[in-house]
Amino acid sequence: MSDSQQESQQELESISPYGPARSTVKGEPLSKEEIEKYNDFFKASLYLSLGMIYLRQNPLLKDQLQKEHLKARLLGHFGSAPGQIFAYMHFNRLITKYDLDAIFISGPGHGAPAVLSQAYLEGTYSEVYPECSEDEEGLQKFFKQFSFPGGIGSHATPETPGSLHEGGELGYSVSHAFGAVFDHPNLIAVTIVGDGEAETGPLATSWHSTKFLNPITDGAVLPILHLNGYKINNPTILARISHKELESLFLGYGYQPYFVEGDDVDTMHQAMAATLEHCVLEIRKFQKQARESGKAFRPMWPVIILRSPKGWTGPRKIDDKYLEGYWRAHQVPITDVATNPEHLRLLESWMKSYEPDRLFANGKIGPELKALCPTGIRRMSANPVANGGVLRKPLKMPDFRKYALSVDKPAVTMAASMPNMALFLRDVMEYNPTTFRLFGPDETESNKLANVYQAGKKVWMGEYFPEDSNGGNLATEGRVMEILSEHTCEGWLEGYILSGRHGLLNSYEPFIHVIDSMVNQHCKWLEKSLEVEWRNKIPSLNILLTAVVWRQDHNGFTHQDPGFLDVVANKSPEVVRIYLPPDGNCLLSCMDHVLRSSNYVNVVVADKQEHLQFLSMEEAVIHCTKGISVWPQFSTDRDGEPDIVMASCGDISTHESLAAIDLLLQFFPDLKIRCVNCVDLFKLISHVDHPHGLTDQEWTALFTDNKPIIFNFHSYPWLVHRLAYKRPGAAANLHVRGYKEKGNIDTPLELAIRNQTDRFSLAMDAIDRIDKARLGNRGTHAREELKSRQIRARNEAFEVGVDPVELKEWVWPYEREGLWKKEVRRLLN
Amino acid sequence: MSDSQQESQQELESISPYGPARSTVKGEPLSKEEIEKYNDFFKASLYLSLGMIYLRQNPLLKDQLQKEHLKARLLGHFGSAPGQIFAYMHFNRLITKYDLDAIFISGPGHGAPAVLSQAYLEGTYSEVYPECSEDEEGLQKFFKQFSFPGGIGSHATPETPGSLHEGGELGYSVSHAFGAVFDHPNLIAVTIVGDGEAETGPLATSWHSTKFLNPITDGAVLPILHLNGYKINNPTILARISHKELESLFLGYGYQPYFVEGDDVDTMHQAMAATLEHCVLEIRKFQKQARESGKAFRPMWPVIILRSPKGWTGPRKIDDKYLEGYWRAHQVPITDVATNPEHLRLLESWMKSYEPDRLFANGKIGPELKALCPTGIRRMSANPVANGGVLRKPLKMPDFRKYALSVDKPAVTMAASMPNMALFLRDVMEYNPTTFRLFGPDETESNKLANVYQAGKKVWMGEYFPEDSNGGNLATEGRVMEILSEHTCEGWLEGYILSGRHGLLNSYEPFIHVIDSMVNQHCKWLEKSLEVEWRNKIPSLNILLTAVVWRQDHNGFTHQDPGFLDVVANKSPEVVRIYLPPDGNCLLSCMDHVLRSSNYVNVVVADKQEHLQFLSMEEAVIHCTKGISVWPQFSTDRDGEPDIVMASCGDISTHESLAAIDLLLQFFPDLKIRCVNCVDLFKLISHVDHPHGLTDQEWTALFTDNKPIIFNFHSYPWLVHRLAYKRPGAAANLHVRGYKEKGNIDTPLELAIRNQTDRFSLAMDAIDRIDKARLGNRGTHAREELKSRQIRARNEAFEVGVDPVELKEWVWPYEREGLWKKEVRRLLN
Repeated sequence: MSDSQQESQQELESISPYGPARSTVKGEPLSKEEIEKYNDFFKASLYLSLGMIYLRQNPLLKDQLQKEHLKARLLGHFGSAPGQIFAYMHFNRLITKYDLDAIFISGPGHGAPAVLSQAYLEGTYSEVYPECSEDEEGLQKFFKQFSFPGGIGSHATPETPGSLHEGGELGYSVSHAFGAVFDHPNLIAVTIVGDGEAETGPLATSWHSTKFLNPITDGAVLPILHLNGYKINNPTILARISHKELESLFLGYGYQPYFVEGDDVDTMHQAMAATLEHCVLEIRKFQKQARESGKAFRPMWPVIILRSPKGWTGPRKIDDKYLEGYWRAHQVPITDVATNPEHLRLLESWMKSYEPDRLFANGKIGPELKALCPTGIRRMSANPVANGGVLRKPLKMPDFRKYALSVDKPAVTMAASMPNMALFLRDVMEYNPTTFRLFGPDETESNKLANVYQAGKKVWMGEYFPEDSNGGNLATEGRVMEILSEHTCEGWLEGYILSGRHGLLNSYEPFIHVIDSMVNQHCKWLEKSLEVEWRNKIPSLNILLTAVVWRQDHNGFTHQDPGFLDVVANKSPEVVRIYLPPDGNCLLSCMDHVLRSSNYVNVVVADKQEHLQFLSMEEAVIHCTKGISVWPQFSTDRDGEPDIVMASCGDISTHESLAAIDLLLQFFPDLKIRCVNCVDLFKLISHVDHPHGLTDQEWTALFTDNKPIIFNFHSYPWLVHRLAYKRPGAAANLHVRGYKEKGNIDTPLELAIRNQTDRFSLAMDAIDRIDKARLGNRGTHAREELKSRQIRARNEAFEVGVDPVELKEWVWPYEREGLWKKEVRRLLN
Repeated sequence: MSDSQQESQQELESISPYGPARSTVKGEPLSKEEIEKYNDFFKASLYLSLGMIYLRQNPLLKDQLQKEHLKARLLGHFGSAPGQIFAYMHFNRLITKYDLDAIFISGPGHGAPAVLSQAYLEGTYSEVYPECSEDEEGLQKFFKQFSFPGGIGSHATPETPGSLHEGGELGYSVSHAFGAVFDHPNLIAVTIVGDGEAETGPLATSWHSTKFLNPITDGAVLPILHLNGYKINNPTILARISHKELESLFLGYGYQPYFVEGDDVDTMHQAMAATLEHCVLEIRKFQKQARESGKAFRPMWPVIILRSPKGWTGPRKIDDKYLEGYWRAHQVPITDVATNPEHLRLLESWMKSYEPDRLFANGKIGPELKALCPTGIRRMSANPVANGGVLRKPLKMPDFRKYALSVDKPAVTMAASMPNMALFLRDVMEYNPTTFRLFGPDETESNKLANVYQAGKKVWMGEYFPEDSNGGNLATEGRVMEILSEHTCEGWLEGYILSGRHGLLNSYEPFIHVIDSMVNQHCKWLEKSLEVEWRNKIPSLNILLTAVVWRQDHNGFTHQDPGFLDVVANKSPEVVRIYLPPDGNCLLSCMDHVLRSSNYVNVVVADKQEHLQFLSMEEAVIHCTKGISVWPQFSTDRDGEPDIVMASCGDISTHESLAAIDLLLQFFPDLKIRCVNCVDLFKLISHVDHPHGLTDQEWTALFTDNKPIIFNFHSYPWLVHRLAYKRPGAAANLHVRGYKEKGNIDTPLELAIRNQTDRFSLAMDAIDRIDKARLGNRGTHAREELKSRQIRARNEAFEVGVDPVELKEWVWPYEREGLWKKEVRRLLN
């Protein structure tokens, strides 16, 4: 080890954010003049960041700062702005030098001042919001609207030009970044990761995304871990572990870490400029190597670790308390300026140290600073990738009708809807080889979607073993993305669609709650985007849920939770859609619909096992278009008002409801039963509250306002009540059956019985609700017979360990012939 | 580097699970005889694991295996069992040798066969379930009940002796383990982490838990990362990265990794025995050093990386397909044994290779194998820590009444409920210095609970900086646990209470959705535990939500989501409780109640800002005990039926509702208004559906069945409808106001107005609902005046950027005097 190596080793052992720059990459690429310019640009940006937080008037401090110039309520966060600005502006140099196509993702919470100040200095902000012009008046408006009623937020919200990542909830910057660069081979996503955010689980695992990034067909993510040192009120873990641990961690994640550390601005300029350039050249080198050789490999991609004090360039101490380099710099750095005249003067001199008078002499920065910014769509604040809607092209779609399951007679054919639908998905994949991906947490095969591998295998950039060629379906180039992290899958998908492409997430129903909060946040992004004129609609976030609750008997209680629908139903009606197709042709129709849609979160729930099929393709299209309708082929009320409405929503629920109709007709052949099926859940809510909702007249035409309704529902029953409580007659007549929490290892039949969603319970329930006079003594008799059949079926299922529900033969049209029972007997003997 | 070092280096570069043992720690601690015994024990366990999956009869294969001996439905997972068993049994040696106090946490999904087989061999299983005795008959029952209707699940469910971690949803084994060892200084939690689970976000960040573990006062976690190689259908990331990356990753996480790799059983015995012993001695050495010096430090704790083939010891190939060492070994390893006679024979010979005839000669293992197990509570399957209820001692509680806020006249005193309640929490902490901790994702200070630091600082085992002594509140010994990961906080808390201690998680309301799924899973654990006779009740999982939606105007739309309550309300009524105290004394009463309770998930929602106080402590106790009641001091219907019921639930919602009553009385002094307040949300549901629910008579006595009810609710309005839709008259009369998704940066007033939850909207709503004849023309006039006041207030708030709602002066009892307006004017000038 040479002396200089040893010295660099020692200096790199410090974990203080203070001192002259210490960096892995050496070099002084900037001239003295350039450093001066970057210093000025840095100051201009920092001034804007403070201005947004503090100033309502006097935007250039031409007058002495007075209380009345301040916002009455001080809001906004300064802490992470300096480091983010520093990275942004130095990357601009490389965009210009190498004509890079890049976006900037701001991970740290409340990081808006950093990106807003850049968008303003680059001119993009004034282009999309002309009232915030590049002059003193526009600047005042720009300042005032920040964190102000009617204005913009403190995160990189949809209103922020160049943002596709809001950062309100922490943890998703890296997965969003990777999602955005998949199939964008020339794109670099410069991604600032806050060291607070880095503590979250979703972020901690998303570093592994490089194992799924193909250097030939995908772009690159350049993560910059910002060791800002503090969160709201605590130090961060990664800023307080040894240098060796930190370095090892990133080597372990599969990255080559490059450190840039210190607070001395001039030397930090050189270090950051040299390091960013080295990293860009590394990225291009790896890409070139892979692209020229045609051989995809997983390099040690670069990551930059930027250690700078929180609130960098602010006062180190105010009175006796640390500010810069401490958690107190997190939010509004000096809070009592309105009441403490001394602190007001301190703020003024701090802000003036950024020289607004010189740098904004004509109300805006001069041309020599402007020249540091790229132009046109090379500005990260104007890159169309971050307004993915403008890049969106509709998918090229095969005709879903050609995958139709043949249904000559309803409820006779058995088929598995999911593998069949996977053929449709396969062809969507094949027709759209660079704009459609399927995502899933190690469940695509289990969810019976393996047919898609014919068009696109699973991307895998890890090591290969010989057995992988024996059913592995792995490839360096693929279209299916699988990591056992719902967070990462969903984050990738969000990044992919936010940048204008299409995708689908498939997951077990019970574990989709893992990403409740991510879906919430995406809904909010979509809704807010609707208000932003220049944002185009992006492809929908499509979620296919299977491994559903009614077949999670054997996996047990932990695998039973259909409540994701409740979370989604709380979101804005503008952006959420929920579909529960009752059979395979309806599933095809729904999937076709959701894949063509934009700006929604679509949730489709369907079982993956074999089921009876009910509707021909033609009927399915009509039914799905209506969203809810009477099924005349299973109804007997054609010539008048029904005695009872048997309604259902969800495939297994529909099956049981139809079987209940059959049972009822065995006992009461003259009963007038109306069969109603719901595919589109929001049909149930009033049209006043959701664009898909039925009017009350339409509701009454389907359900009546005075006849009992036995509604068999896939999820928790209260969701239907919450949607339909206002409907005419619903309070008295609507009886919903669905899942309730009662844990046991059971048969599917028993699970249904415990929840009264099985055919016997539904039929008995119906008998109890129908006008007694209509049924007479026959009612009591039928009830007893049904009860005894239910007990027999349950006992047999328990004895043999197999459930008649699971036997293909135990299905509705055969039941009258008693075939299911014969089959159970066969197993017992 | 010596030759042998070089050799060991090379062999450690392989990432194949095959070959003779390769390990970091060398040594051959076992005699030949011991190896034989461990081999036999291993075989006996593996036999049990396969038996559970396959056999319904013929448990010892005394007869030739026939189809009818098999379970009709084959369920269960074999893949991870061998590695887990291997670790378990070798750790037993050290328990005996060093008299260790240890528990075993099985992280991999569906890992039950491993731990069930150990519990059976250790005798614990037969002790708690005598029908599963240690003989052939008991063994048959033991086999049959596994994944069988009415039986036990394929995870380490509550029925599993020695389990405090079910593992149904992946990601929480490490955080649970750390939670269990906090304040258990002599405990070691041997924790198997599946390499599938290791891909999840929550697991990926939970490795950092060592930064919060004090080697003096806490025990130790010995994680064993099981590189089993495959998930359901994919290779795992960590099994397919280079050895160097893997090693670096764990060094980076702050652990010293010890590898044990290979499939040769005899050499693997030696390697595992030597490695485990080394790790135990390392743990004891670190603890001794810290405890003797009194100086807590963060050592590089050991982690074992066990690389063995999935389905280890099974057939490598069946027909042409890989089984062992491939994903096909994940679940039932040979699925077609009932229909493929050749495969049936293969299964038989595989099972017989484990020599059941010799090892279970008398229907159970012989004494020489039994001697390998520890005895009594030293058996990991019988450690009381894993049945935490038996260790639970009630908290020593200060009298919460002594923290009462003085409320002489209702709605006159302003006070901040949260910092006051923090004094109570502080004393709970002080009174229970080793059995109570507060957890939070970097929000404890922000949530205004900082008073607790007087009794217990924040645990921090990272590096310290000089400024930490300037308001840092950090210490190596502390009682507050903060990491910016809701997942880790919640996981720690679960581990802490599952092992018998008490705690509270505080979090921002909007981001609690991050752990929806964890809370779901814990609810399921609790509910299932109620059915397990030998499980004692554990302390409740207490969650305090603040930074609530109605004060998340400035943080923006991403910070607005009160929907966690919907998720909780779906869970079993046996285990969930939701409280929304309207003021500070009610908050104290609720917190006292939840901290004393057991076996619940308690959610308490309260704002952290200053508010008017309504109830004296005496009144608060009565009100909270009732859960819902009429507030006569704000009602004017004392002598008859009300014209309208003004109801509320939630502190800010209550405040607005009371202000609306005041407004109404300004216009209609003779109006008969009934004020009802709800603290305990489940009062609204029928007593049939929840033990706290009101009867319909009680409901009607409070709400009437024919008068309009304006219900101002904290969360999404539909939740109230979902709970109360069945109530007499509710369909026609119950009008709920609450939060709906409409994103904007706003003032709190504007946020309320958009949702019609502000005083003006509520009053106008009431006027619209009250019998027209009662109000006459005055109704129209009052409505207009209210509308105009609302507009004025809104305009003024928008202009100045500060909201009258936020001014202490703009509160109900003063409003008549117009003081708030004066105050707004003052700010405007």
